[in-house]
Amino acid sequence: MNPDRILECMAEMHTLTRLPRIGWIMAGVPDPESVSDHCFETAIIAYMLAQQIAEPVDMGKVLAMALFHETGEVRLTDLPRRSAPYVKQFKRKAEQDASVDILGGVAESVLPLLEEMHELETLEARLVEAAEELQIIAAAMYYAKENRGDMSEYRRDAEKYDPLGIGPAAAVAEVVKRRLGEYLGEKPYWELGYSRHSVADDRAKG
Amino acid sequence: MNPDRILECMAEMHTLTRLPRIGWIMAGVPDPESVSDHCFETAIIAYMLAQQIAEPVDMGKVLAMALFHETGEVRLTDLPRRSAPYVKQFKRKAEQDASVDILGGVAESVLPLLEEMHELETLEARLVEAAEELQIIAAAMYYAKENRGDMSEYRRDAEKYDPLGIGPAAAVAEVVKRRLGEYLGEKPYWELGYSRHSVADDRAKG
Amino acid sequence: MNPDRILECMAEMHTLTRLPRIGWIMAGVPDPESVSDHCFETAIIAYMLAQQIAEPVDMGKVLAMALFHETGEVRLTDLPRRSAPYVKQFKRKAEQDASVDILGGVAESVLPLLEEMHELETLEARLVEAAEELQIIAAAMYYAKENRGDMSEYRRDAEKYDPLGIGPAAAVAEVVKRRLGEYLGEKPYWELGYSRHSVADDRAKG
Amino acid sequence: MNPDRILECMAEMHTLTRLPRIGWIMAGVPDPESVSDHCFETAIIAYMLAQQIAEPVDMGKVLAMALFHETGEVRLTDLPRRSAPYVKQFKRKAEQDASVDILGGVAESVLPLLEEMHELETLEARLVEAAEELQIIAAAMYYAKENRGDMSEYRRDAEKYDPLGIGPAAAVAEVVKRRLGEYLGEKPYWELGYSRHSVADDRAKG
Amino acid sequence: MNPDRILECMAEMHTLTRLPRIGWIMAGVPDPESVSDHCFETAIIAYMLAQQIAEPVDMGKVLAMALFHETGEVRLTDLPRRSAPYVKQFKRKAEQDASVDILGGVAESVLPLLEEMHELETLEARLVEAAEELQIIAAAMYYAKENRGDMSEYRRDAEKYDPLGIGPAAAVAEVVKRRLGEYLGEKPYWELGYSRHSVADDRAKG
Amino acid sequence: MNPDRILECMAEMHTLTRLPRIGWIMAGVPDPESVSDHCFETAIIAYMLAQQIAEPVDMGKVLAMALFHETGEVRLTDLPRRSAPYVKQFKRKAEQDASVDILGGVAESVLPLLEEMHELETLEARLVEAAEELQIIAAAMYYAKENRGDMSEYRRDAEKYDPLGIGPAAAVAEVVKRRLGEYLGEKPYWELGYSRHSVADDRAKG
Repeated sequence: MNPDRILECMAEMHTLTRLPRIGWIMAGVPDPESVSDHCFETAIIAYMLAQQIAEPVDMGKVLAMALFHETGEVRLTDLPRRSAPYVKQFKRKAEQDASVDILGGVAESVLPLLEEMHELETLEARLVEAAEELQIIAAAMYYAKENRGDMSEYRRDAEKYDPLGIGPAAAVAEVVKRRLGEYLGEKPYWELGYSRHSVADDRAKG
Repeated sequence: MNPDRILECMAEMHTLTRLPRIGWIMAGVPDPESVSDHCFETAIIAYMLAQQIAEPVDMGKVLAMALFHETGEVRLTDLPRRSAPYVKQFKRKAEQDASVDILGGVAESVLPLLEEMHELETLEARLVEAAEELQIIAAAMYYAKENRGDMSEYRRDAEKYDPLGIGPAAAVAEVVKRRLGEYLGEKPYWELGYSRHSVADDRAKG
Repeated sequence: MNPDRILECMAEMHTLTRLPRIGWIMAGVPDPESVSDHCFETAIIAYMLAQQIAEPVDMGKVLAMALFHETGEVRLTDLPRRSAPYVKQFKRKAEQDASVDILGGVAESVLPLLEEMHELETLEARLVEAAEELQIIAAAMYYAKENRGDMSEYRRDAEKYDPLGIGPAAAVAEVVKRRLGEYLGEKPYWELGYSRHSVADDRAKG
Repeated sequence: MNPDRILECMAEMHTLTRLPRIGWIMAGVPDPESVSDHCFETAIIAYMLAQQIAEPVDMGKVLAMALFHETGEVRLTDLPRRSAPYVKQFKRKAEQDASVDILGGVAESVLPLLEEMHELETLEARLVEAAEELQIIAAAMYYAKENRGDMSEYRRDAEKYDPLGIGPAAAVAEVVKRRLGEYLGEKPYWELGYSRHSVADDRAKG
Repeated sequence: MNPDRILECMAEMHTLTRLPRIGWIMAGVPDPESVSDHCFETAIIAYMLAQQIAEPVDMGKVLAMALFHETGEVRLTDLPRRSAPYVKQFKRKAEQDASVDILGGVAESVLPLLEEMHELETLEARLVEAAEELQIIAAAMYYAKENRGDMSEYRRDAEKYDPLGIGPAAAVAEVVKRRLGEYLGEKPYWELGYSRHSVADDRAKG
Repeated sequence: MNPDRILECMAEMHTLTRLPRIGWIMAGVPDPESVSDHCFETAIIAYMLAQQIAEPVDMGKVLAMALFHETGEVRLTDLPRRSAPYVKQFKRKAEQDASVDILGGVAESVLPLLEEMHELETLEARLVEAAEELQIIAAAMYYAKENRGDMSEYRRDAEKYDPLGIGPAAAVAEVVKRRLGEYLGEKPYWELGYSRHSVADDRAKG
């Protein structure tokens, strides 16, 4: 790649430092973490988990997966969970196409890693995925501790956390779940933004 | 609709006050306007333009179009221009489906308005569309005046502004274009984030 | 109005997107809604309420009232409740004069609407006023849900909410009050900033 | 004063750390200085100027004037220049009344200082006033240097700066004016928000 | 000092309005007070406390101490408590050297005051120190009231508050402690960031 | 390490997402990138550069260096350049000690990497260092493009950029330098905050 193209690629990836993680915006967190923060912490957590397990791990692969796994969001931004019913059938293809356009020549080495991560079969893929989900519930726990936004929805994420066979991830998730529970206490959860009411239903009720 | 459902609808529309207009984020504007700000100003501008024209205007229709025209973004968020190649074929359907789910019984009166606005045939539809685009270039001009972000991309928006036959909109757009030009001066435009490089191209250049 | 004057008017109204609602600043809400957000939501709520009642409503009038009712704040900013003892006798006149200067030719159609809203006699006026107050207590409820600032003062606003004869407004306010109560729990209210101590009193206590 | 009353007074003065200086908001400065920042810097500058002059200065008086001179804004907030035509006849009285209510027993020592500052006769009063205005044009110069907001309006403030006989203040203001000019260059000034158009005028022009 | 040097000094002190108090950042407070806010409030509180005591106080000295006591942070920034084990032996010297470089000729009058404050022997020094610590626990109490960040660590600061013989400071601190306790309730404290684990310890535990 | 200790380590590293890069604060950038953003982008850039060179690279080592190279800042925060004269003799030792305390058992694998990076001898160390400095000048260029803060100081950083023998880094730095120059134009540089005036000097000048 020529220097202009490398810089263009750097500048696009830099966009991730500007994009807030949309789930936290929806939950009312003031000044929430960026997409790049999420990637950074996922990488850090994956590294730490890898130190705790016996099997050898390809660390270059693990960290690259963690760092590049949101590349598509450079152009598509971070879509919230509640968008799933409307976008899920085409989202993955859109992310892949965008990633190729963003990364140019670098895509040749990155895309197979993202594919591997998606398949969740190799140890490295499971490690990064377990780290990513752990990052999310840990963030919810920090925010609950600091009263930043309404974290009641994330009780469920902590509850159904799947460590994908990574022992230390399961153990840490237990501590996160306990602490999140302590910080949230009896706080009620108002399930907002997920309903799929029909016009007919509302007319009947009116 | 029952009161719980009305409140749910209010709370979802409230989300628009939390969502930053993503184009400004991409342009590096610190603390940019929200989607609700964009709708508010579009309505204000449409009202003002309507005062300047001779034909009678259905003001209830005009203002409702302006206020509700981004309803789908409650669940889909504000997608940037650069996402167009990846999402354009399904975006409108997704917005419509999301709007129905968000608005419930209120959708019965709102959706036909959004459809009318999309068709751009009635005077009211053209008025709101002309106001919306005027809001965007005026915002770019305010930001350029205040040095907030890189507005060089919006020279082109001002250049190709289409007033859709609304005379006063055309006249105001001319003033906006002139002022934007004065504030931007010779500032270069770096077209970032729109390229569609192929891996093969990059390999060839490397 | 000539195009320069229309743009000046647009630019002044745009100021409302920069002004934070001061009550939330006083309550310690980080990054609170703007005055324009308040107007936007008041309009949205008024529209929804109008859909729920049997009487015919002049929607153009309702939405214009909601959108322009804070025009004077463009130059006077949003004064907090605690300023009332010092400014109440001249505030309304100041807002009216400022509105005329801001709106220019547009004032001819807007000012009578603001006057009508102030009188609270027509259905449209009551609808907008009921929507405005509902917007405030709903915002307090969202902030309480999200732990943003100290909302204990707003229990009283919810308690004394006056729907002005708009049935669905009363019903929604009941739900808001219940939810606000749940989120606030036993939180104490410290009445700060309203005292009118005399120097003599403090000397006696000292 | 009893401890509860002292704390109430502390808590009200603390409000000044939450209030943005409204002039900077109007000029589009992102995240501008607070009223307390303005008071802090005014005090610092007054202290520095006092070190440069031969006459003896009552420093306790100077610093107290600087620190408390915006007390009334605790309840009235910082009103922008453009509000002057609408509020100037009652603003000073409102500020005085609010200051008494805020400060309670402390008002006995503070109010005479604010009165002295207002008269601009003593050396201390002139020193603080000269420092306050110097703070404003220096802030405009820092913001111009950092591209934060549109500082073109403040050229005039620098131009007409009155050092009130404080020699070093005049000398520093000259440097500020020169630097502000360098940072602003040829930037045009759009006088927005001060016009006092009559409806009749606009009708004539239309 | 020549005007350029005075302006340089002003501009450096201005930096304190940009620096967030780092302890609040660590506690997750969104948009926390600046170092200048801390100095401003310390000065205000010291002034108020001085009004409540019988002994005569040199107010110029008191306020100057409060305003300049963080001068070194202009170049060193506000180091958090948890940095103490690594920096305590050289921090004071670094602050003194930086203060001299920042203040230039003004240092001649300021440095002896900072030295006096450090010794905690004179009434003025004790008054400012008592005010400074009172500012910190009062800020924690405001933040707890407003749900901004995790204030559980500051229970201990309130508990061990030392009024240094200033009676009214002790009385106000009691009210602050009570209110802080009410706002925090049973909230657990997680002592994070202070541990000094050895690698060996962790290996043993693993 | 036990799960509580791993979570503690995660939570401390998470602090880096809250710490603003202090150089940008000093330059007046509103809402600047965090320390974690800097690490994330350094890693991304190092990865891209590694793809452009012929020699084989240990990618796990490269990415881990980039991600952990600011670990000490968790407790020491990001000290600005202007602090160098006061802290340089003890800063490195403080960072090392803090890193050990933060990372616990993970320090065993991380510290040797940070040591290797410091030595700048291996290809991996040079690659990460070249990426880190490239990240800084590229950020200055993005900020200059977006008018965020005063980037005039960074012309010098771009000028003296040392690619440490990494060819593509040198080539990209040339493009960055050119673009930075275009965006800054003739903007003057005011060297503020680095002077080391003696009191005697200022007295002479006064």
